[in-house]
This record gives sequence, C-alpha cells and structure tokens, in this order.
Amino acid sequence: MAYEVDLNSDLGESFGAYTIGQDEQVLNYVTSANIACGYHGGDHNVMSRTVKMAAEKGVGIGAHPGLPDLIGFGRRLMQVDPEDVYHFVLYQIGALAAFARAHKTELNHVKPHGALYNMASRDPEIALAIAEAVYHFDPQLILFGLAGSELVKAGRQAGLKVAEEVFADRTYQPDGTLTPRTQPHAMIHDPEEAAQRVARMVLEGKVQAVDGTDIPIKADTVCVHGDSPQALLFVQKLRDSLTKQGIHIKRVGTS
Amino acid sequence: MAYEVDLNSDLGESFGAYTIGQDEQVLNYVTSANIACGYHGGDHNVMSRTVKMAAEKGVGIGAHPGLPDLIGFGRRLMQVDPEDVYHFVLYQIGALAAFARAHKTELNHVKPHGALYNMASRDPEIALAIAEAVYHFDPQLILFGLAGSELVKAGRQAGLKVAEEVFADRTYQPDGTLTPRTQPHAMIHDPEEAAQRVARMVLEGKVQAVDGTDIPIKADTVCVHGDSPQALLFVQKLRDSLTKQGIHIKRVGTS
Amino acid sequence: MAYEVDLNSDLGESFGAYTIGQDEQVLNYVTSANIACGYHGGDHNVMSRTVKMAAEKGVGIGAHPGLPDLIGFGRRLMQVDPEDVYHFVLYQIGALAAFARAHKTELNHVKPHGALYNMASRDPEIALAIAEAVYHFDPQLILFGLAGSELVKAGRQAGLKVAEEVFADRTYQPDGTLTPRTQPHAMIHDPEEAAQRVARMVLEGKVQAVDGTDIPIKADTVCVHGDSPQALLFVQKLRDSLTKQGIHIKRVGTS
Amino acid sequence: MAYEVDLNSDLGESFGAYTIGQDEQVLNYVTSANIACGYHGGDHNVMSRTVKMAAEKGVGIGAHPGLPDLIGFGRRLMQVDPEDVYHFVLYQIGALAAFARAHKTELNHVKPHGALYNMASRDPEIALAIAEAVYHFDPQLILFGLAGSELVKAGRQAGLKVAEEVFADRTYQPDGTLTPRTQPHAMIHDPEEAAQRVARMVLEGKVQAVDGTDIPIKADTVCVHGDSPQALLFVQKLRDSLTKQGIHIKRVGTS
Repeated sequence: MAYEVDLNSDLGESFGAYTIGQDEQVLNYVTSANIACGYHGGDHNVMSRTVKMAAEKGVGIGAHPGLPDLIGFGRRLMQVDPEDVYHFVLYQIGALAAFARAHKTELNHVKPHGALYNMASRDPEIALAIAEAVYHFDPQLILFGLAGSELVKAGRQAGLKVAEEVFADRTYQPDGTLTPRTQPHAMIHDPEEAAQRVARMVLEGKVQAVDGTDIPIKADTVCVHGDSPQALLFVQKLRDSLTKQGIHIKRVGTS
Repeated sequence: MAYEVDLNSDLGESFGAYTIGQDEQVLNYVTSANIACGYHGGDHNVMSRTVKMAAEKGVGIGAHPGLPDLIGFGRRLMQVDPEDVYHFVLYQIGALAAFARAHKTELNHVKPHGALYNMASRDPEIALAIAEAVYHFDPQLILFGLAGSELVKAGRQAGLKVAEEVFADRTYQPDGTLTPRTQPHAMIHDPEEAAQRVARMVLEGKVQAVDGTDIPIKADTVCVHGDSPQALLFVQKLRDSLTKQGIHIKRVGTS
Repeated sequence: MAYEVDLNSDLGESFGAYTIGQDEQVLNYVTSANIACGYHGGDHNVMSRTVKMAAEKGVGIGAHPGLPDLIGFGRRLMQVDPEDVYHFVLYQIGALAAFARAHKTELNHVKPHGALYNMASRDPEIALAIAEAVYHFDPQLILFGLAGSELVKAGRQAGLKVAEEVFADRTYQPDGTLTPRTQPHAMIHDPEEAAQRVARMVLEGKVQAVDGTDIPIKADTVCVHGDSPQALLFVQKLRDSLTKQGIHIKRVGTS
Repeated sequence: MAYEVDLNSDLGESFGAYTIGQDEQVLNYVTSANIACGYHGGDHNVMSRTVKMAAEKGVGIGAHPGLPDLIGFGRRLMQVDPEDVYHFVLYQIGALAAFARAHKTELNHVKPHGALYNMASRDPEIALAIAEAVYHFDPQLILFGLAGSELVKAGRQAGLKVAEEVFADRTYQPDGTLTPRTQPHAMIHDPEEAAQRVARMVLEGKVQAVDGTDIPIKADTVCVHGDSPQALLFVQKLRDSLTKQGIHIKRVGTS
C-alpha cells in the first residue's frame, strides 16, 4: 500500500497595493492552494491571478473563506451566528469559483481561514454551518479541517469528503489540539524534525504530544507556509524528506 | 404577434443594520430582480434572503454588480481599468450565483449598477469587460443595458443575449441618452403618462425625446423603483396600464 | 438640593445612502448626543451634520466610538487587545472632535458603543484602555459608562469625570447588570413605569432588580432611543414624567 | 541669505497585517512625514506608531488624507463633491491630530494623497475644500501642494501658509505640471542629476522643462520616497548633494 499526503498553503492574501507572501514560489512545492476570497485578505484581481497560477502549475484550488475582518486579517475571534457563517462562506466560495470557471478549471476544496478555522475546530454549530455551505455549493468539494476536530466531524455529517489537516511546524497537546503559539515549545523550527513527525503521522497515524505521550492523528494534508525565504526552504526540505521516506506528495482527492 | 415587456427593479441593497427599499412588496410587481452583490450595497445575509424571496415569487434573479464604493453606494464615477472591472464583475456574479444554487435556482441575468452602468453605456472597453465577465461565467445569462448603449452592443459582440432597458420615469435626449437628473423635465412623475410612453416604446419602438422629435428605442425591460409607497403605487399603475393595452408583463428570456 | 439627570441618545448612525434614526427629532428631547464616528456606523458627512444639529440645539456632543465592524454595526463581541482599543478610540474621538471644532463647539463626553460598551463594562483592561484614550485626548471629557461597571471605575482611575448610565427601558439583575434581551422581562415598554423607575434611581439611588430586591444604582444619565415614532413618544413621556417629579433634565457637566 | 529646503515623504501606509515602506529608515533622512490617515492606507495602530517615531526623530508630522478607496490605495480619480472632500479631509486630520496629542506633539502640515492631490492641483473647488478643512481645523497648519498648482493658490486664499512641493525624480512640462508617468522621460533615476535640478530650483527658482525651456518654480519642499533600498539610497545622495551645495535641509515652518 502506498502512503501519500497533500501539502497545502494559504495563498492569494495580497490586497490592492499591499503584497503578502511569495505565492509564485510556494506554488512549486505544494499540491493544494487555499486562496483568500476578499473578506480577511485577497481581492478580485489577486484571486484571479492566484487561481490562474495554481491552475497552470496543476495545484488544487481551494476557497479559503475568512471572517469579515480585513483590518484584523481574519485572525480575531468574533461573535458570529451560524446562519451568518453559512452565508459568508457561501458568498466567498461562490466568488472564488467564478474565477476558477473563468480560468476553465474547478474548485477542489475549501479550508476556513484563521479565527474561523479555530472556531470551527471547537464549535459544532459553526462547523456545521461551514460544512453545509460547502455541501450546498458543491457536494464534491473536499473540506479541510484540523485533524480530529469538530470541523472534520461536521464535514462527514454533512456528507462531504474531508481532509484531516496537520501542522508540520507546530506541536500538539495530549488532547490533539495545537499548542497555543503563546506557549513555549509551540513551534518546530527544524525542518528535519518536522519531516520526521509528519512522516510518522502519515505512516503510523501517531504523533508525540508535548507531554511525551503518543496520540493518534490522521494526516491527509499538511499545512505549510511560504511567506519568507526561510519558510520556503522549510517546505522544500519537508517535501524532500517525506519523499525520501517513501511518502508520495499528492493532491487530496486525486487518484 | 404578442407584445411583451419585462419589469425589473434594483433590490437587496440593504446592508447589515441598514435597511433600504421595500423588497418584499416590489417583488409582487416585477418580473426581474437585480440583486446587489456586496460592493455598492447588499451583504451576504441580504443576498440570500432576497434570492429566496425572488425565487419563491417566480421573479427572475439577476446579479447587480457595482463599483467597490459602499460609502458612495456605487453612484460615483471612478477611474477603473477594464481588467479590474472584469474581475470585480466576475466576483460579484459568482457570489450571487452561490445563493441561487443554495436556494436551488439559477441566475437569469446581470445588470450593472449605478455609475458602472453609466460608464458601461458610453465606454466600449468597460462595456466589453462586463460582457466578457458575464459570458465567461455563463454564456446563457442575459445582459441588461441601457437601450441603444455601448453595453448592449458589447453584450451582443461577446455572444450574449441582451435586454435593452428603458426607464418609465425618465425622459430621453434626441441622441437616446437619458436626460440628466440635474436638468428640468428629466423625470416623469405621472404613472399614466409613463405607461403611455412605455407602451409606445413596446408597440411602436419609438419614444418622444425632450425636443419633441421621435427617436427609435427598443424596450425589452423597464426599470422601476420600489423604495417608497409612491414608487410602489407607480409600479402598480404602470403594470395595470400596460396590461390593459395588451402588453404582456413577462420575464425576459422565458418563452 | 436639586435633583437632576441627563438624557442621552445614540445618534449620527446613518451611513452613505443608508439612513437610520430620527436624529433631528430626538435632539429636541435629549441633553447629550452620542455621535457615531465611522467605525460601526456614521460617516464624515453624517458626523458633520449631526454635530451641527446638536450644537444648534444646545445638546452636549459626545464621541460614540465603536468596534471596526460596519457590517455588524459594532454589536458583535470581537477579540481586541487593549492597545488596539486605545488606538481606535483615540482615532474616533479625534475625528469627531474635528467636526466640533469646525462648527465652533467642543466635545463634552465619550460613550463607547455596543459590544465595546459591553466588553468595557466587564473587562478592566479594555475599560482602562478606553479611559486612557479619553484622558490623553482631553482630561476634561466626561466618560459615560454603565452604572457600577468596570468602565466607570476605570474612568475614575484614569482621572476622568464619569457619568453613570442607566437604562429606562431595561430591567436589572441583582448584581446590577442589565437583564439580557434574550430573557423574558428584559424590557420595560410602559413609559410611565420606566419614568417611575428612573425617578427612583435619581431620587433614592435604588432600583428594584428582577428578583424583587432593591439594589443601589447611581443615575447620572439615562439612555433613550429615538429610532421610531414609539421610541420618540417614550422619550417625551419619560421627560415629562421626570420633570413633573421635580427632576431637572440637564446636560451632564454643566452647572 | 541662507537657502533651505524641506524633504518630505509619504509614510504610515501599512494596514493591519500588510506592511508597506521602510518608515523607520526614511525618517532618518526627511524633515517632514506625511502620515496616512486610514482612508487610502494606514490604520489606527500604524498611525500611532508612525507619529511616535516621527516625533522621536524630530520630523514634522503631517496628515496625509486620501480618498475613501483602500482597495485602490487612493490612487484612482473619483467623482467627489467639494463638501464631501471638506468633510473627509477634516475627519482624517482630526484622527491624526489625536495621535499627535497623545504623543505630546502637534501636527505641522497637511498634504493630500494620490488622486486627491492630483485633483486638487487642477480643480479650484476641490482645492478650496481641502484648504478650508485645514484652516478650520487649525489655521497654523502648513498646506503642502504641487508648486504653482490650484492647491497652493487655494491655500493662500484660505489664509494658510503653504509649502510648494517639487519632485526630485520627475520631469516637468512647459506649463509646470509633472510629465505623466506613462510618457518617456517622466522619471529621473540618477540621484546626482536629481540633486542638481532640485538645487537649481532652490537657488535660482528655475527648472528645465522637457522641451528644454526654463520655467519658474518654487521649491519649499521636495517629495522623496523610501519604499525600497534604492529609494533610500536616492534620498541619502540627494540630501548629501544638496547639503554640499550649501542648501540647508530644514523642516518647513521652523525658524
């Protein structure tokens, strides 16, 4: 049996005169692109350009809907009701899908951004609102969510294929949640160590939590960053190392 | 041969806590609804609600994309380049189409809003950018534009069906453009007079310009307003009067 | 000794083409106007107009800063850090003060809006951030806050004069907080009952909580609404009734 | 008699998670900072930080109000009426002044941004609206405008001190306007050549236009950029060269 994993990255977050990220380069290393849809970042011009680049490089195109909070980049928790979430996720998916269509390609997946992702990991109602928006837009789309979270549960409940997401550069708590960035040992900086951990998640379905215990984890897709030369190097090394361990880097949902 | 005309109105322009228009009532009188898409007015919750109401009442659902100018309600001319227009029209159509899909219906048409509509009436490049965005999203969509304008020409050039739009409450210049609101005699306040003029446009293909001469005009759809009790009454009377003159009020594009 | 109380209302919340409230009428009945500053509602044109009207009617002008959430009208809790709050309150006060200056008048007070007001009632850090922004802008400004809340404590701690605010149309919990609107008996609809309660707060410093017990409360200013004909009538009756009971309706901070 | 000139730069244009410019470095070379006020760029946190840095380095603090067009960075012409301009300039000056006050310093000048600057150079009504907003806020503020433009005329007419602005890296038309960037020979890339031209403007009040003729020009302040390492180097060399020619680099309005 072949082992495989997807590499995904958040892209298309530039806005107007403001540039963020090294989208063109990171697209050479990932298999899925989560493209911002204009609420927390991105704009209609950036969306079109990013969809086009991803399509040309054969990278899976995903909507990356966020909270309506441009000034906070969608990273701040906000009081939202599930109906509102359902509507703004639907809006953003629809907007991005229009660019996919104009570039004669299709959406592959949806991954909520930032604070919305975090809220959906824990709150079943918000998770279900997102999952239903995705399903009602297109039941073939794959929902990306934190491995083991409420979001992947809601996705399955709604009838969607889901991809459980792990983080190469983060450590885990014994309950399977990510160690908050505010705590020590939250981050893993060595790409080789990160690759070993991800490889074990893929090959054995386990990761060592910060307390030393092993916890079960499913790794369908790995979140990586490309917003600095160091980040790009990290991705390259991670990719090389996983490949050397016999893990096939492959877009989720392709056969 | 049967004479027929469509009645359209701009709807779904409320935003957050702000309410504009009497959408529910006006939907009882029109055959096409132009629904704001969040750039000049409207938001994701309002869009969903308005699409749902229109679908339930059998009114044709159209995207009503505007300039990115919420504070100016999309009514101010703005320097835009055609590629930008192409992208923001595509974005807004896609967003609205997602709500149509979630409510198990479809978009019927697209009509640009306010200053974008006016710019597209005169500027062939902006007109073509809009027409291509519509065509690339869905070549079956009908493009609404000012009768005789660059926009309807661009629509045909792009391969779209177009609906030439006339205004029941406005007078025309000898060159077929609308008399600017800042001039005297720009508006027609009497619904009976308005109905007579529209009836003549539909039956004879003519309207009397402000200088007394007759000019040719094609009237596929009539723009009406529903933002006040008087406006609603105007629409009712217009509709009644047209019907009495044997003109069938019918959604554009239906057979 | 004379008893007196201020009546305040949230005004200037219209935005662009969107109109909310009956500002001109309500200004006839209140002594303090809390004017939106463009973050949750209001815009630069509305601010100027509202400041001018308030000044002409001799109503105290206050900044009404809110969260940066136009689509949510500043009513949704949002994760904010105190430094951010300090900065956006300062920004909004400064912007409103410019209009006061242009109309040859001055700011009298500051009252945070909506969710920011609620967060500041409970969270001492947010409360202090607001109080310091007010103080650093102008130590003579009066800070309006929920009677007995963290916000009035922070205001005093920062060196400001504070006005403790009560609500004529709301009931109170035994701990002095407002009964959430989602609960039964949260609202008082009868203006006469409301007036009796407010009169007792002013004259005796007490209000009956929902459990029947009396709690101490200080009433420097009463929040009233003017967004409907009924609301306006409520204010009129409240004002008449208070006056009849010998309570002088007078702007906070005037002698 | 001593010759002197001011060097100014547009700063504080970062927004939320988006960073633009090398503000800290460029502040080492200029004498006046034009700080964005949140409409075309900048936000309340960036404004506070930039005001603080400028104050610490003894650089003159100016408001840099722009059109309400964040997505277009205030660079697109937009249909605005003078009353609207008056209000949004007042709003932005007030907001920035609040940060100056909190950092125990004061505004020195105002320079409109981008398309607003260009419109004000040619349109006397828009120019006057800006000048009056500045004057009504504080008649001591210095208005920066294109040398010889309608804006400097309007500033004088309103009773303000004005600083005529020249561009070190741009060429001039025979009528004193800047050569549009879309034309050849619009830009001057050599800092030494730029310095010679600026020196002649300061010392002789003349500049050679693109047609070879000399035109009169007044140079109170020179606009420089700091958004790249090359731009910074350009500023350094310009400053050195001007100093060597005996021109004192000095903030406008100081004695």
